[in-house]
Amino acid sequence: MVTRLTNFFLKTLREDPADAEVTSHRLLVRAGYIRRQAPGIFAWLPLGLRVKEKIERIVREEMTNAGAHEVHFPALLPREPYEITGRWDEYGDGLFRLKDRKGSDMLLAPTHEEAFALLVKDLYSSYKELPLSIYQIQDKYRDEARPRAGLLRGREFTMKDAYSFDYTDAGLDASYQIQRDAYERIFTRLGLEYEIVKADAGAMGGSKSEEFLHPTPVGEDTFVRSAGGYAANVEAWETEVPPSIPLEGQPAAVVHDTPNTPTIQTLVDLANAQHPREDGAAWTAADTLKNVVLSLRALDGTRELVIVGLPGDRDVDLKRAEVAFAPAEIEAATEADFAKHPGLVKGYIGPWSDNGAVLGEKSATGIRYLLDPRVVEGTSWITGANADGRHVFGLVAGRDFVGDGVVEVADVREGDPAPDGSGPVELARGMEIGHVFQLGRKYAEALGLKVLDENGKLVTVTMGSYGIGITRILAIIAELNNDDKGLIWPESVAPFDAYVVATGRDAAVFEAAETVVSQLEASGFDVLFDDRPKVSPGVKFGDAELLGIPKIVIAGRGVADGLVELWDRRTGERTPVPIAEAAARLRD
Amino acid sequence: MVTRLTNFFLKTLREDPADAEVTSHRLLVRAGYIRRQAPGIFAWLPLGLRVKEKIERIVREEMTNAGAHEVHFPALLPREPYEITGRWDEYGDGLFRLKDRKGSDMLLAPTHEEAFALLVKDLYSSYKELPLSIYQIQDKYRDEARPRAGLLRGREFTMKDAYSFDYTDAGLDASYQIQRDAYERIFTRLGLEYEIVKADAGAMGGSKSEEFLHPTPVGEDTFVRSAGGYAANVEAWETEVPPSIPLEGQPAAVVHDTPNTPTIQTLVDLANAQHPREDGAAWTAADTLKNVVLSLRALDGTRELVIVGLPGDRDVDLKRAEVAFAPAEIEAATEADFAKHPGLVKGYIGPWSDNGAVLGEKSATGIRYLLDPRVVEGTSWITGANADGRHVFGLVAGRDFVGDGVVEVADVREGDPAPDGSGPVELARGMEIGHVFQLGRKYAEALGLKVLDENGKLVTVTMGSYGIGITRILAIIAELNNDDKGLIWPESVAPFDAYVVATGRDAAVFEAAETVVSQLEASGFDVLFDDRPKVSPGVKFGDAELLGIPKIVIAGRGVADGLVELWDRRTGERTPVPIAEAAARLRD
Repeated sequence: MVTRLTNFFLKTLREDPADAEVTSHRLLVRAGYIRRQAPGIFAWLPLGLRVKEKIERIVREEMTNAGAHEVHFPALLPREPYEITGRWDEYGDGLFRLKDRKGSDMLLAPTHEEAFALLVKDLYSSYKELPLSIYQIQDKYRDEARPRAGLLRGREFTMKDAYSFDYTDAGLDASYQIQRDAYERIFTRLGLEYEIVKADAGAMGGSKSEEFLHPTPVGEDTFVRSAGGYAANVEAWETEVPPSIPLEGQPAAVVHDTPNTPTIQTLVDLANAQHPREDGAAWTAADTLKNVVLSLRALDGTRELVIVGLPGDRDVDLKRAEVAFAPAEIEAATEADFAKHPGLVKGYIGPWSDNGAVLGEKSATGIRYLLDPRVVEGTSWITGANADGRHVFGLVAGRDFVGDGVVEVADVREGDPAPDGSGPVELARGMEIGHVFQLGRKYAEALGLKVLDENGKLVTVTMGSYGIGITRILAIIAELNNDDKGLIWPESVAPFDAYVVATGRDAAVFEAAETVVSQLEASGFDVLFDDRPKVSPGVKFGDAELLGIPKIVIAGRGVADGLVELWDRRTGERTPVPIAEAAARLRD
Repeated sequence: MVTRLTNFFLKTLREDPADAEVTSHRLLVRAGYIRRQAPGIFAWLPLGLRVKEKIERIVREEMTNAGAHEVHFPALLPREPYEITGRWDEYGDGLFRLKDRKGSDMLLAPTHEEAFALLVKDLYSSYKELPLSIYQIQDKYRDEARPRAGLLRGREFTMKDAYSFDYTDAGLDASYQIQRDAYERIFTRLGLEYEIVKADAGAMGGSKSEEFLHPTPVGEDTFVRSAGGYAANVEAWETEVPPSIPLEGQPAAVVHDTPNTPTIQTLVDLANAQHPREDGAAWTAADTLKNVVLSLRALDGTRELVIVGLPGDRDVDLKRAEVAFAPAEIEAATEADFAKHPGLVKGYIGPWSDNGAVLGEKSATGIRYLLDPRVVEGTSWITGANADGRHVFGLVAGRDFVGDGVVEVADVREGDPAPDGSGPVELARGMEIGHVFQLGRKYAEALGLKVLDENGKLVTVTMGSYGIGITRILAIIAELNNDDKGLIWPESVAPFDAYVVATGRDAAVFEAAETVVSQLEASGFDVLFDDRPKVSPGVKFGDAELLGIPKIVIAGRGVADGLVELWDRRTGERTPVPIAEAAARLRD
């Protein structure tokens, strides 16, 4: 196929769009691939549509290879199934909700677990019909609080979502592995380096999930990896729990005056100066127990105070806290909150005071007190005594205080030991490019999706859910493949296979270009031909660079000598070749 | 490609779906093509998706042939542009409206005139870049009051909508003709007989529009056609206006007692018995002026009474009235309405009474009085005198009464003269399969879409809009191609090229079927192979008939003699052929 620029809907822009925060957004708009319609909502122009379809084709082929069947669900769905699974509420403001003319509640689906589960429930009744994997490539909606970064996080976006249905756990494992393998093939074909990391299942629920992250310093996700092969999103990190310590023989707790020590560092300094460790070593921040007050806002708007106790050398990681307390939102505690609990003294909060337990199981404050997994029985801490300028030394967990539970909110540090014993981890950043979930029976249970097993017994189906954001992937590829001149597409997703530019006004040049175009077409190339008669070579070259088709042929002055130039967009290299050989050279 | 039923997501149903009102809906659900998700909202299963994609491919190819470029707009759009053109209000309850988390008004687009116009405005500035035709195939939303008839009138539906942009009227004519020609090719390829009829532009606005109707007695649209080539949807019918008649010499109006004549027929009978025509002919209903009270509810909810005067042999056609008074809705006048206007006497309403003008320009009732185009100056009528049991005879239009305007709401009758003089028309019914509009400058004007012309002068662009409902077309094809056993697809849109059925348990039969399948695949056929090992021949044949793939090959008992059967789904004919020849015979 040959497409001529003189008959193509394309307009490149000289100026960067004012609202573009990231490179992919800036270049995709400037090069005429997309146009913004509203925050996080874009129209696709012919070039963009072509790249999108190439990505979709690769995804479709690998879904077919994975034995998944394509279907297509509506974006507009009724409330009821999402009400039953709880997601109508759990999605909070992120869900686009509307009413139809009869007043029925509807939504624009953020994903389709419910609809797919109901479809299988409607049609299937026997284990013999399983396993089943079905998928769609379809436009989804999420009302992001900060739709930004162009297509990287849109409010309307195209997604491939697949769902697997099995009646045994082993079946789910197998279906999950098949999709996971397909994802590896997809990202390899797309030229996207990836790491598979343990992930938090988040609002999806379920028992196991992994994220495909493209490692890049500008990624929005932080993950850890050990040399021994452990990899996890920090949200999914599980702290290695140290062994507990015998309580017997530990000295009793002592309260000391510690004036002007509202911070961990001032406290550690004072402790080392005035109350040195018996073993002669220095106190460190890790010997202190920091107590952080959080306010949680539940979906129904009610607020609850929670205090988290963690070693003083750690901070609360807000993203991990969001996961730990989801779907509640985390807000700062207010002065009014403290006023209600005079037993808690700001800067000197601890689980204990001279008057007895202030926090934890034995207290009467009613505030949940959750402890970091490192605060195991027998560990001894310097912590606040709930009196201005006073701390308690040698307060022993399990003897002097007990929490109401354990919580994973402390930040993960370079060098922390991987929970699987595979050594210390390093921190890295990445962009999410895919996510696979073992949902288990959560959705099937809620929606009554059961089949008869070999023994004629009704069993609840177990599901997997597997997502790739098509439009997000496109933006990520653009984000990773560009230079200061414009885009540089990998061949697998380029909007055209080759770009032919005729420069100048010399008829012979245009004839040579036509020859090359015909040869390329005969070789099965999909060619974009810049045949504009009155545009300067500079503008043409600029457009060629901006558009980013990787293989370019220039017909220019060299035509007089029987030559055209092959221009490699990525390397910038230009190679003169005889006109008749151009197509063959590009093909090889 | 070969798809095996043992590895395909398909479940045919034995029972008709309870909510299916039309054949296409019933069969598409039973045969596993679609599943209903909510009123007027459907999911597409693998078979349905294949048919849909085949239709889309044909449409795409013809759009490309017509020089139109494919783009893709979001379904979710901001309110503002639709506010500017007035469609935010005009669409009434038919528009799905919602608010995002920031409270901004958004909509699910019913069509995209505004968005396309703004795109061209953003990117183009010169006449040199025109003409331009761009299109998309995209899911649209209309909150139909009575979503019924399955895919024929859905609330979420797939549409091909194209838009043309020109800067001269002649340019628009040419762009319109190119799309119109493409539509003819599309419907021919889809095997859909069509008539192109003059249509009402409706809520789209604009100067000219035509509908492609598939003529069928069960169609929901009524249209007229003359032997001389005139064809129009009744909503677009324009009554031929008779010449006016001199007022001079016409006798004065006279009021007669006409007791018990609340209907036209009783009035005509009494008139002929008691007040015969001077020329000796009989009075007919066409000599009477019937006055019909309508109540219009505007978009803002306000109500207005309107009285329509039309010849007594005509009725108000509600569909024509809806067009005439759009976007207002038509409701029945209430007793309270009459109570407010004691000058109007039910059953005896007319524009005049003994007390003077009751309706029309000279009246004081404030009620708009609109006249049928046949009520020209000098025509003389028998009509109500606004007194119980009294009518006025010889009331002359333009002398005794004057309307406030002309309105086209009278029904169109078999035998009415075509307005272009091409003879009497016949009435026929059809289903809308496509609609083309010359929008003119309405949208461009509202949205400020201008380009510089040859003289450097800013001129407003003129637009066309061209729509085909993909999912509706699919339903119509299903509606027209079926029998009591199931669907019968035309080859151009069948989900597979051929269906191969292996019956019985004989290994030789399955081997023969595999041979045929391989041959068909080698011939480029996309084959669905019923390789289910334990399903009875009766069930297999039933499914084959229900699914409706037109070319079927049966491998059964004949295999022992080296034969398979070619089964033509449409004719039902079965032809034994040697196994080795089956593929070649199907190909030819």
